[in-house]
Amino acid sequence: MSDTVAMTLGEVRHLARTTLRAVGLAEDHAAAVAETMVAGERDGCASHGIYRLLVAANSVRAGVVVPDAVPVVSEPARALVRVDGGGGFAQLAFARGLPLLIEKARGHGIAAMALTDVVHFAALWPEVEAIAEAGLVGLAVTASHAWVAPAGGTKPVFGTNPIAFGWPRPGRLPFVFDFATSAVARGEIELHRRAGKPVPDDWGYDADGRATTDAEAVLAGAMRTFGGHKGSALAAMV
Amino acid sequence: MSDTVAMTLGEVRHLARTTLRAVGLAEDHAAAVAETMVAGERDGCASHGIYRLLVAANSVRAGVVVPDAVPVVSEPARALVRVDGGGGFAQLAFARGLPLLIEKARGHGIAAMALTDVVHFAALWPEVEAIAEAGLVGLAVTASHAWVAPAGGTKPVFGTNPIAFGWPRPGRLPFVFDFATSAVARGEIELHRRAGKPVPDDWGYDADGRATTDAEAVLAGAMRTFGGHKGSALAAMV
Repeated sequence: MSDTVAMTLGEVRHLARTTLRAVGLAEDHAAAVAETMVAGERDGCASHGIYRLLVAANSVRAGVVVPDAVPVVSEPARALVRVDGGGGFAQLAFARGLPLLIEKARGHGIAAMALTDVVHFAALWPEVEAIAEAGLVGLAVTASHAWVAPAGGTKPVFGTNPIAFGWPRPGRLPFVFDFATSAVARGEIELHRRAGKPVPDDWGYDADGRATTDAEAVLAGAMRTFGGHKGSALAAMV
Repeated sequence: MSDTVAMTLGEVRHLARTTLRAVGLAEDHAAAVAETMVAGERDGCASHGIYRLLVAANSVRAGVVVPDAVPVVSEPARALVRVDGGGGFAQLAFARGLPLLIEKARGHGIAAMALTDVVHFAALWPEVEAIAEAGLVGLAVTASHAWVAPAGGTKPVFGTNPIAFGWPRPGRLPFVFDFATSAVARGEIELHRRAGKPVPDDWGYDADGRATTDAEAVLAGAMRTFGGHKGSALAAMV
């Protein structure tokens, strides 16, 4: 027996959809969430690929996400779109608001969309990629849990607060970039913890505010931002 | 005799204006450029204070800036403002476009302004501060000369490409941040060169692409971005 299973992207999509449907996620949400995992596998970002399926399924089973939420799109201003996600996964809310965002950006030259009351459990790059594929420049940010200490501090205040941006390139795939403003992804520290390996001493602090190489202590304490005070300011901005 | 002269901000303003007028800069430009230097001194950022007066005056005398340029404001889309600076300093172009930018941001929920054909020889924070003082969230970027190597490269491609952002805070001064996407400001390396001091070996490369602690070699070679590949991606985005 092999530890590895080779799957086509179509099989990844099918597995993700049927599993999410089986735990009770509505059809349209399951399809939207599955596409993020397909994008993760397609782009070689396993941490956002099918690996996330179990966690997403557990989130549905644990009741932390509304499985049949209906996103409601509104227009708080002429160049703004708001989507109230009703406590559901962010993907469907994004998909429902995107056509209006694109229409407004084209009509006004610039537009913004805010997703509220959503569970954002995904990467940001599929979102800016969709914007770039519409021929537009995209910039996306999202806040997350208080895990990261500001530069000069040792207590967790910021989320891993990622920033993603992208733009179209004639005749080529769009330029797309997506990164956390923390020094590393939280999953990277978790992988060190599971493997019993030390982390570099500039990744985070323990709960007493001391630099540490103990992955578990960092997870219980605070992560650091990338790029010192500059990354910290970006995290604050997000 | 003392090496230090204490000046009030009013005296800084007067010295900057009269000097710039004396070298032939038009009255409105001289007033706008002087305000940036006043802001630099007021905020303790000497590198953008009255120190810049000689360089600005020399730029006028050398003919690299049009001394009496008349900025032309246009509206390429409903939520966009463009200001053609006509080869003059950016400050007046910004000031001339700002009221329309504010009006559009308030009316549409978001708006953007592009300054073209300007000499940007200043910090960005006075610009986002002006936006924040109008009760709006501001984000500003500007490209500059090819001085900075992308992460993984050793040849200069990017400018020091700064990013600035700010937002109002009720009853308090606005939150304002402004930083270069290079590891350090170019002026910092120049100050090391003048002092004959070595620079840390992660600030830049010499012209042959080798890491070096020689400030002059970095100035002739390439600076590095802050925050590794993440800062590099931000520089590319700017």
